[in-house]
Amino acid sequence: MGNYRIFNNVQKHITLNDVEKQYFESLLKVERIAKKELILKQGQICKKIYFVELGSLRAFNTNEDGKESTIMFAFQNWWITDMSCFVNQKQALLSIEALEDSQVVGLDGNALEALFDKIPKFERFFRILFQNAYIREQQRALHYISLTTEERYRKFINKYPGIADKVTQKQIASYLGVTPEFLSTVKRK
Amino acid sequence: MGNYRIFNNVQKHITLNDVEKQYFESLLKVERIAKKELILKQGQICKKIYFVELGSLRAFNTNEDGKESTIMFAFQNWWITDMSCFVNQKQALLSIEALEDSQVVGLDGNALEALFDKIPKFERFFRILFQNAYIREQQRALHYISLTTEERYRKFINKYPGIADKVTQKQIASYLGVTPEFLSTVKRK
Repeated sequence: MGNYRIFNNVQKHITLNDVEKQYFESLLKVERIAKKELILKQGQICKKIYFVELGSLRAFNTNEDGKESTIMFAFQNWWITDMSCFVNQKQALLSIEALEDSQVVGLDGNALEALFDKIPKFERFFRILFQNAYIREQQRALHYISLTTEERYRKFINKYPGIADKVTQKQIASYLGVTPEFLSTVKRK
Repeated sequence: MGNYRIFNNVQKHITLNDVEKQYFESLLKVERIAKKELILKQGQICKKIYFVELGSLRAFNTNEDGKESTIMFAFQNWWITDMSCFVNQKQALLSIEALEDSQVVGLDGNALEALFDKIPKFERFFRILFQNAYIREQQRALHYISLTTEERYRKFINKYPGIADKVTQKQIASYLGVTPEFLSTVKRK
């Protein structure tokens, strides 16, 4: 069996025997992505959910005026996709790009359904995964509404130390919902 | 067996036989809440997840300066709690208040664990529930970042027709992350 980090990630919440691990592994597709390469392009049908084995990625939306908004980062051991479009097999609202040379494993919708069918305890794993993702987004909404930009920036940097080496100030600014100019004023303070 | 709406909600995603329904019902606690009454107060330990049988509620945070931010509404057939605090049994960051006379059914953490243990297909139900909640919050983050206040207000009103009868402009404004004055300027346009 491959020595994938995804096994450890899954086994934080459920226990798999060797037969289950083998079946799970048979569903995974490994993809290498060069820095700046896209694994999902806005407007395409979003087919997979990805786990980051190595490297880091970001998800962003580009609006009609060409303005880019980064709405998510994903580092090693994180999961990433455009969930709405993955679940409903619709055109993606987000593009997903590698911030550095990266390696992901992907599961498509059929693989995931087969997994739930064959090894129902994966329902538990994804229940906990989505529960945590929901918590994160609920806290993020609370931060947007109740904190100043300066407090949000401080929380962000504390939560993701070292992120400033991998992403641009423009990407951080759009993630925090402010202009890059506003962010640099906050940082100078 | 009681004639609760929660049965229909659960059976959108999983099928229960009569024995399972009875067991599920035995875990539910019905609570009636008068308008403006709280079922969760910020700072208390958050013990339950609630399903709205009747009426409507909102969740809000009050910051150190006494500023209230509404971060969630819940209408009939919706689920609501302070997820982070419920999962980790921590002090709530949110208060939850009835917007009108309401009735909810609540499940505490032990009941939920017992439910997963006894009827594992509830993992599937909550996997789908949290998946959808995550999708909603992900889209909300995207809207915060990429849409103007006017567009966000329009989407909000389209999504929740009739909401303006139940909640104040101040609550809508804080949900959208703007001041009430700014919202009324947007509405006049």
